[in-house]
Amino acid sequence: MKVMGKSYRTIWLDKSNPKEVNIINQLKLPFSFEIICLRSCKDACFAISEMQVRGAGLIGATAGFGMYLATLESSDHNFQEDLENFAKELIATRPTASNLFWAVNRQKKAIEKGSSPEEKRLIAKEEAIIIADEDANFCRKIGEYGLKLIEEISKSKNGNTVNILTHCNAGWLAFVDYGSATSPIYAAHDAGLDVHVWVDETRPRNQGASLTCWELAQHGIKHTLIVDNLGGHLMQHGMVDMVLVGTDRTTRNGDVANKIGTYLKALAAKDNEIPFYVALPSSTFDFEVSDGLTEIPIEERSQDEVLLLCGLSSKKQEVETIQIAPSQTKARNWGFDVTPAKLISGLISERGICEANEKSILSLFPERA
Amino acid sequence: MKVMGKSYRTIWLDKSNPKEVNIINQLKLPFSFEIICLRSCKDACFAISEMQVRGAGLIGATAGFGMYLATLESSDHNFQEDLENFAKELIATRPTASNLFWAVNRQKKAIEKGSSPEEKRLIAKEEAIIIADEDANFCRKIGEYGLKLIEEISKSKNGNTVNILTHCNAGWLAFVDYGSATSPIYAAHDAGLDVHVWVDETRPRNQGASLTCWELAQHGIKHTLIVDNLGGHLMQHGMVDMVLVGTDRTTRNGDVANKIGTYLKALAAKDNEIPFYVALPSSTFDFEVSDGLTEIPIEERSQDEVLLLCGLSSKKQEVETIQIAPSQTKARNWGFDVTPAKLISGLISERGICEANEKSILSLFPERA
Repeated sequence: MKVMGKSYRTIWLDKSNPKEVNIINQLKLPFSFEIICLRSCKDACFAISEMQVRGAGLIGATAGFGMYLATLESSDHNFQEDLENFAKELIATRPTASNLFWAVNRQKKAIEKGSSPEEKRLIAKEEAIIIADEDANFCRKIGEYGLKLIEEISKSKNGNTVNILTHCNAGWLAFVDYGSATSPIYAAHDAGLDVHVWVDETRPRNQGASLTCWELAQHGIKHTLIVDNLGGHLMQHGMVDMVLVGTDRTTRNGDVANKIGTYLKALAAKDNEIPFYVALPSSTFDFEVSDGLTEIPIEERSQDEVLLLCGLSSKKQEVETIQIAPSQTKARNWGFDVTPAKLISGLISERGICEANEKSILSLFPERA
Repeated sequence: MKVMGKSYRTIWLDKSNPKEVNIINQLKLPFSFEIICLRSCKDACFAISEMQVRGAGLIGATAGFGMYLATLESSDHNFQEDLENFAKELIATRPTASNLFWAVNRQKKAIEKGSSPEEKRLIAKEEAIIIADEDANFCRKIGEYGLKLIEEISKSKNGNTVNILTHCNAGWLAFVDYGSATSPIYAAHDAGLDVHVWVDETRPRNQGASLTCWELAQHGIKHTLIVDNLGGHLMQHGMVDMVLVGTDRTTRNGDVANKIGTYLKALAAKDNEIPFYVALPSSTFDFEVSDGLTEIPIEERSQDEVLLLCGLSSKKQEVETIQIAPSQTKARNWGFDVTPAKLISGLISERGICEANEKSILSLFPERA
């Protein structure tokens, strides 16, 4: 998508040096646009764990490129063992992210086919590019399917503004391009529909305020920032036509793990009979897992993410960190919650839209039955 | 309650000059403890509208003292008209706060009984003190009734920790003393029960992080700060035994207007079969209003409360304001939402506990039938 008029993806091989991988440092957004270079698997691990890159698809793509960088670092005489160690390091960076395991395992299988370390490195490079391209392509298709839902709402409102609430950033910044939850919105906007997005700020890390607002503004989409507490009130008063979110892991029966707070919005949507859709490329499905509440491990992150907050100092126009609670206060910080399938109107994938239940999901993914 | 070991109320007549009213400047908490002096009705209006004082009971008490200050400023020759203008200014400060109208009208009725401006001023002073004392006394009684609920939970858990989730600050800082939602918690703690409080930070103004954490710490209550998004996850995983919140206005059929986001917690409590109680002194009931969703006006406040955030600069150890979204981003900011009675387990008032329906409420308040 566009940044200051120029097209970008969120991750790409450096053209002049294909042993380096470029990413947008999302920790610097929205106040500065910085591109950084990953030169080792350790760099890729750091980028994922410190959230320089974040979001289901982009974590997968970064893991794919991380495995490529790992092959460059694995020694010729001990290639397989070295690679296995790098793979473990990558997988340990974010325990809830399904795409992480998926991309690492996909790379492992692809790399196995090479008969020499040199061939394995070539395969890993090609596979990383394919993973990234596929992600962008799948997101584009999610946009096409989701567009139909927005078109229907727009028709039922006689072309008046369609108000969509989203939580966290499931935008192109969370993928390689287009995004999952935002892709239907970009598609609707590009098709000339009148859309407006309510953007949950998404505490504790405020990815809504800092990333979703930024990317929607860059593409010219009407949007309004709100606190996470407001969505229920908006829904009670007819100010939301649809909720559209992403997911970090979705089970085979349609339970959705997503950024903490998603479950609360799903409850409010149900209570007010507002459609609640989840957009995801198929790589985000975890077909091994059925019950989201008991089977998906939920990452607990540092209390500092709650206690400290980062933004632009209004006095000095530089990024600063402030403390928002008394110094003796402790916090807990689980990063995700699970929205039970019963609260979800449908899942939008690159293969089409299905209901959030095993039968309907498997009708789109018969190979996983 | 105690501040650094010394007992305070949130508002009191200055002992050396009874024409001045002292308040704790809550905008400075938790990073500094500042007492400021109200010398005019305009000072009282400013304190309420700028939220140096906030919370149902304290707004009422401040309006009571504000009316007293207004009588001191009303001219002898035009007393009634002057007072009426001051009353209007007070009422205009916060449109959703029921206690505001209640206290101003109570003062007007009391003052009417005076036969001279001088007598009216004396009456207003006494009435302001009575309003404040009554508030503290009612909150103390709420604590006694609510304690029984916590005792029952504690028994059912064999004396293990009772985990209570609260939203915003319905603590003693929101009243004259004890608080509404916190009063049963203080009572339980003082009775030797093992209680722990999950404190919602309560965006946008973070009264949970800055005020509730501070006052619980001062009294030695175990507590943990969480983002507003987390409560649903905690409830899904058995980590919350009870939700206990305050209210800014409650209708005669039990709909509860409270800080934005309360409704989302009530939905999660219902979905997980967790008791959801609302604590309120009777002054917070608005017996004129039945349907909360359509009849209670919801205040929309400045977008700056969403876009800017205040805290202690970690570098410089001074309070600083930061901007959390891109500069072009706009926000909307409704301050309250309405939790429908159907989601509420019970209302705890100074007269006892009732269900959230007209019949049960009127059984405690037969004079309003």
